[in-house]
Amino acid sequence: MKENGIGPGQVIRRRGDGALEYERDELTMEEPLEIRIGDKTVATTMRTPGHDKELAAGFLLSEAIIQSRDEIEKFSRPTSARNRENIINVHLAPGVKVELNSAQRFGTISTSCGLCGKESIDAIRQNFSPIKSTAIRIDIDTLLRLPTELRANQSEFARTGGIHAAGIFDFGGKALTVREDIGRHNAVDKAIGHAFLDRKLPLERHVLMVSGRASFEILQKALAAGIPVVASVSAPSTLAMEFARESNQTLIGFLRPPTFNIYSHVERVILD
Amino acid sequence: MKENGIGPGQVIRRRGDGALEYERDELTMEEPLEIRIGDKTVATTMRTPGHDKELAAGFLLSEAIIQSRDEIEKFSRPTSARNRENIINVHLAPGVKVELNSAQRFGTISTSCGLCGKESIDAIRQNFSPIKSTAIRIDIDTLLRLPTELRANQSEFARTGGIHAAGIFDFGGKALTVREDIGRHNAVDKAIGHAFLDRKLPLERHVLMVSGRASFEILQKALAAGIPVVASVSAPSTLAMEFARESNQTLIGFLRPPTFNIYSHVERVILD
Repeated sequence: MKENGIGPGQVIRRRGDGALEYERDELTMEEPLEIRIGDKTVATTMRTPGHDKELAAGFLLSEAIIQSRDEIEKFSRPTSARNRENIINVHLAPGVKVELNSAQRFGTISTSCGLCGKESIDAIRQNFSPIKSTAIRIDIDTLLRLPTELRANQSEFARTGGIHAAGIFDFGGKALTVREDIGRHNAVDKAIGHAFLDRKLPLERHVLMVSGRASFEILQKALAAGIPVVASVSAPSTLAMEFARESNQTLIGFLRPPTFNIYSHVERVILD
Repeated sequence: MKENGIGPGQVIRRRGDGALEYERDELTMEEPLEIRIGDKTVATTMRTPGHDKELAAGFLLSEAIIQSRDEIEKFSRPTSARNRENIINVHLAPGVKVELNSAQRFGTISTSCGLCGKESIDAIRQNFSPIKSTAIRIDIDTLLRLPTELRANQSEFARTGGIHAAGIFDFGGKALTVREDIGRHNAVDKAIGHAFLDRKLPLERHVLMVSGRASFEILQKALAAGIPVVASVSAPSTLAMEFARESNQTLIGFLRPPTFNIYSHVERVILD
């Protein structure tokens, strides 16, 4: 029997003409991932399964728990846990110790959270150095191509809007990596985690392009990876703009070709 | 001198014809709010300032830290702190004690996080009872009016998409409260916190309507307030759907009149 008229994997759709029909649901997966170092839980994040190593690495990097690729020896899954696919163990290299004090122990992070677990306002900002100024600039035409490039690298389903995307592109517009997740911050962690594990950091000639809004956390994650330009399809927040100005990051918002806004450090964009 | 060509409160806008102009930026405020009980920090959330009492109350309710309106005596701001407008103290009524064990101490919650701080997967779900079944149903025409009603109650700025909205409507379509925030979960906490402080719970004949996606946390917050129907403009997640089915909640997604999807408990909707 159908559960109250709707079977497993089914959805009732009302069409434009008012007719009702049963269809297969195609929903974005949301499952918790518990990130452990040794036997300690560092964080639990609500994520779309896949690329869990990258997610864990990107998270630890952007929360300043680890700094260098060599600090991670390997990843594993617990052998016996009930939800083993929702748990990942990060094994640190011999001799590497991380301090998980109360300010660095994290709680459960929902699908759109990237900056959880610090217990006072003062602890919100990590102390990453601002981007170093260089003469390298990005061309306006490259910038205008990024939304199309991001979509071209997304899955069919992602294009329907059920999932966030984050892509890292070089200043020539070439994609280094594009990742998707139900959580905006997770998509960013996966993208920078990929580059981190691949020893590509700092990404001094790269842009982080996100499909949604740009909040403070997104800018901070980009800074952790050394990324000087962040572009988003939608609006940034006040704190994102302030952070970008202080961190010598160029922040582009509402990137909907042919229009966009620049909120900080315009000197890095070739406008003419 | 302008900071790198862009002054405070300014943005460079590229228009459709390629021309560049300076404009006033109008960004959504994002600031941390530290929620304290006594001298203990319970959570820090990245939020849009305003309705902080409602936000704190809604958060404590939906995290099952408090259950009844009478448990809260009053709210206050610290008298001396540097960031006093970003800190709120919740004073419990005499004799009321809450256990803030490690599973109930929360970290910093970013702009899109509603379920932070629990340190293992097992602790993700609170133990709210499922909605009790009644014969009360909502009419399809009322449902189809909700997106328009939500927008009508939003600020001008919110309609541009820079901020999330959550509204609670009765089954006749009348708004009880509509709240906005840069964080989806905060908008919901403010809306249910408003009803909670006003002693309107459980909201047995009400719909929670959200402007964005419906994740697991949104359904759980609705359940904490006893709300039987959740409608969202965009997609739900797999976990949201599973949770709604288990909790006897009707979940409507992609509510874009004249179309919508029903993911659970269709028996609560009068479809003809």
